Amino acid sequence: MKSVSILGSTGSIGTSTVDLLLQDPDRYRVVALVGGANVALLAEQATRLRASTAVIADDDKLQALRDALAGTGIRVAAGRQAVCEAAGEPADWTMAAITGAAGLAPTLESVRGGRVVALANKEALVSAGDVMLRAVADAGATLLPVDSEHNAVFQAMADRQTAQVEKIVLTASGGPFRNSTLEEMERAGPEQALRHPVWSMGAKISIDSASMFNKGLEVIEAARIFALSEDRIDVLVHPQSVVHGMVQYADGSVLAQLGAPDMRIPIAHALAWPERIATSSPRLDLAQVAKLTFEAPDPVRFPALRLARTALRDGGAAPAILSAANEVAVEAFLKRRIGFLGIARLVEAVMLRIGAQTADTLESVLHWDAEARRIAEGEIGAAGVRAA
Amino acid sequence: MKSVSILGSTGSIGTSTVDLLLQDPDRYRVVALVGGANVALLAEQATRLRASTAVIADDDKLQALRDALAGTGIRVAAGRQAVCEAAGEPADWTMAAITGAAGLAPTLESVRGGRVVALANKEALVSAGDVMLRAVADAGATLLPVDSEHNAVFQAMADRQTAQVEKIVLTASGGPFRNSTLEEMERAGPEQALRHPVWSMGAKISIDSASMFNKGLEVIEAARIFALSEDRIDVLVHPQSVVHGMVQYADGSVLAQLGAPDMRIPIAHALAWPERIATSSPRLDLAQVAKLTFEAPDPVRFPALRLARTALRDGGAAPAILSAANEVAVEAFLKRRIGFLGIARLVEAVMLRIGAQTADTLESVLHWDAEARRIAEGEIGAAGVRAA
Repeated sequence: MKSVSILGSTGSIGTSTVDLLLQDPDRYRVVALVGGANVALLAEQATRLRASTAVIADDDKLQALRDALAGTGIRVAAGRQAVCEAAGEPADWTMAAITGAAGLAPTLESVRGGRVVALANKEALVSAGDVMLRAVADAGATLLPVDSEHNAVFQAMADRQTAQVEKIVLTASGGPFRNSTLEEMERAGPEQALRHPVWSMGAKISIDSASMFNKGLEVIEAARIFALSEDRIDVLVHPQSVVHGMVQYADGSVLAQLGAPDMRIPIAHALAWPERIATSSPRLDLAQVAKLTFEAPDPVRFPALRLARTALRDGGAAPAILSAANEVAVEAFLKRRIGFLGIARLVEAVMLRIGAQTADTLESVLHWDAEARRIAEGEIGAAGVRAA
Repeated sequence: MKSVSILGSTGSIGTSTVDLLLQDPDRYRVVALVGGANVALLAEQATRLRASTAVIADDDKLQALRDALAGTGIRVAAGRQAVCEAAGEPADWTMAAITGAAGLAPTLESVRGGRVVALANKEALVSAGDVMLRAVADAGATLLPVDSEHNAVFQAMADRQTAQVEKIVLTASGGPFRNSTLEEMERAGPEQALRHPVWSMGAKISIDSASMFNKGLEVIEAARIFALSEDRIDVLVHPQSVVHGMVQYADGSVLAQLGAPDMRIPIAHALAWPERIATSSPRLDLAQVAKLTFEAPDPVRFPALRLARTALRDGGAAPAILSAANEVAVEAFLKRRIGFLGIARLVEAVMLRIGAQTADTLESVLHWDAEARRIAEGEIGAAGVRAA
C-alpha cells in the first residue's frame, strides 16, 4: 500500500492522477488532496478515494467544502497555509501539479519531506531551480518528471548511465506556426496562436507552444533535472509528437520514449516508478502513424529557445525573470495589447533591463519574479514594445 | 581488466570487436582468438592484442599460423576440437560470432563456462534454442544479443521490467523488394535480390533480408532471448533502418533504440555492458534523416514471416528445419536452380514433409538439420519446386 497526496487534484494532471488511483484503489492510501477552487470535484474525488484530508486553496470556499464532505470523516481545510501543511504531511508519493508561482511553496514542502515527488509544476525548476535542487539534495528526495518530454528522457535513462550521456533531445510539435512566415506570425492573433495541432491544453501553454517558449522553459527544466549543461540539450521539431524525448549515449546508441499523446502515460510511469502499471491509454500504432518527421527549430521565427538558453547560461534569477516576463507577455498578447512576435521582444527587453541577479532563496526568486512582471507591465503600458 | 575471447575474430563482427578492443587495449586481456581460414588476419589480430591463444578452424592452416606467430609466445592450434577447447577457456566475456552450424558447439562451450556471452550466431538460438537456453540456465550464463534488432530490444528493456512488457517490435528494412510486385519477385534473379538498400552484408543474409526469412529467424531468436510468445513479437517495415527495435509496456510507453546502421554500436554495447564505452561510430542526426516511415509487412509477398511463426509455435525441431531448408534454398536460388519465390515454397514443402519432431539435444538438432537439407536437395533435384 502506497500513501499518496495530490497537490492540484482538480486540474488536468490531477484528475488524470485520480483516474489512475481509482483504477486500483486498494493499492493506495490517499493522504491529502489539494484543489484550487472546484469544490464539487474535490469533494467527489476525496469521497471516492477516501482521502484523509481535502484542502481547497481558495479561502472563501471552506464552508462549501465542509458542507460537501459533511459526515464523511474527511478532514477539511482551506487557504495557502493549509495547502502547504497538507503538502508537508508524510506520503510515499506526491503529485506536485499546482501550476505557476502558487505551486512553488507547496512543492518545496513536499520535497522537504524527503519523499518521491512527481513534478508537473514547471515553474518550480525553471524559476526556483537552485532552491528546489538544494532542497531535493538536503532531503534526499527523488524528483520524477511528469512533463511528457522529461518523463521520456527519464525513461530513456532508466539504467542511469548518466556518465555516458552525450546529449538529450526534447521534441517539440512546432505548434501552429511551424510553417508560417515571419509576416504571418507578426499579424497572428490569439485565435491563430491557440490552434495547437496535437495536444489540447490551456491558453497559456498553447501560446507558449506556439512561440516555443514552452520548449525553452523545458530546456531549463531538463538542465536542472538531468544536471546537463545547455549545449547538451537539443530540441527537434517533430510535428507528430510520437517521440517525446531521446538520450544519446557515447557508444552511438540513442534511446527514445514514444507513445500516444496522452498525459496518463507519463503520470502512470511516475506513479508506479520504479515498477510499471497497466493503463488503458491508447497504444501507439506506428504502422498507422506511418511517418515521423524531424527538423531543426528555426531560430529566426522562434527566438524563445535562444532566450531560454541565454537565461540558463546566465543562471541566478535569469530563468525566473524570463518565465515571469513571458507570463505577462502572453496575457498581454491574449488581450491583444501586443502582437505575437512582441512576446519574445518583451521578454528580451525585460531580461536586458534587469540584468544579472542572484536568486538563492525562495524569497529572492519571488522578488525577481515580481520585478520582472512590474517592468514588463511598464514596457507594455508605456511606449509599447519596440519593433524588432 | 576484463578477459575476453572472440570466436570468429576474422569475420565482420569479429573484426569490429577487435577494433573496439584496440581502442583501449589496456582494459582487456585477450584469452583466445578463433578465426576461420584467414591466417594473416588472425595472426595480425593476435599479435596486436597480445592474445594468449590463436586458433584457426581450418586444420590445413596450422603450420601457416605457426609460422606467422613464431617467436611471439602466442599458443597456436587448429581444427574443430581446438576451437571448442578455446571456447571453453575461462573468460569474462566471449563474442560468439562463428556463423552457421559450425558455431553451435563452440557457442555452447562458452555458455557452459558460465560467463557473459555476446551472441552474434543466429543459428544457436534458432536451431538449437532449447539446448542453448537450458545450457544458459544450468551455467548461470548471461546472453547479450548482438544482432542490431535484439540488442535494441535488450537496451529498451534495460530496467528489466519484463513482467510489464506487452510486446516487442523488430524493425525490417523491407529489402530490395519492398515495393515490388509478386510478378517482379517471381522473375527476380540474384542480381536483384542482392541489392540491399541499407546494410552491406554477405550473400546469404542479403537474400534472407530480401525474402524476410532473416526477420523470421529474428522473430524466433527474439522469442528465445526475451522469453516471449510469438504473438508478442511484431515486425514493422522501416526502410530507413534508424529505429532498430522497440518495447511496448503495459502503461502505453514504448522504449526504442535508434542509431546509425553501424554494427559497432551493438557490439560496443555488448562489450561494455552493463556499462557503456565511447565509440567513434557516426552519430544519429534525425534532423538530417528528416523522415522515418513504418508499414506492416505484406504477408502475401513475404510468406517467410508466417513460416517462421509457424515453426516457432510448433517448436521442437521445426525452427532448425526451417533454417536448414532455407540455407539450401538460398544456395539453390543463388545458383539459379530455383526462383526467388521458390525459396519460401521449398522451405514450406520441407517443413510439411518432416512434420513435428523433438530436438532436445545438440545431436538431434544436427540430425534434423541434416534431414532438412537432404529433403530440400531432393525436392530441388527431382520435380523442382511446386508452383504456389
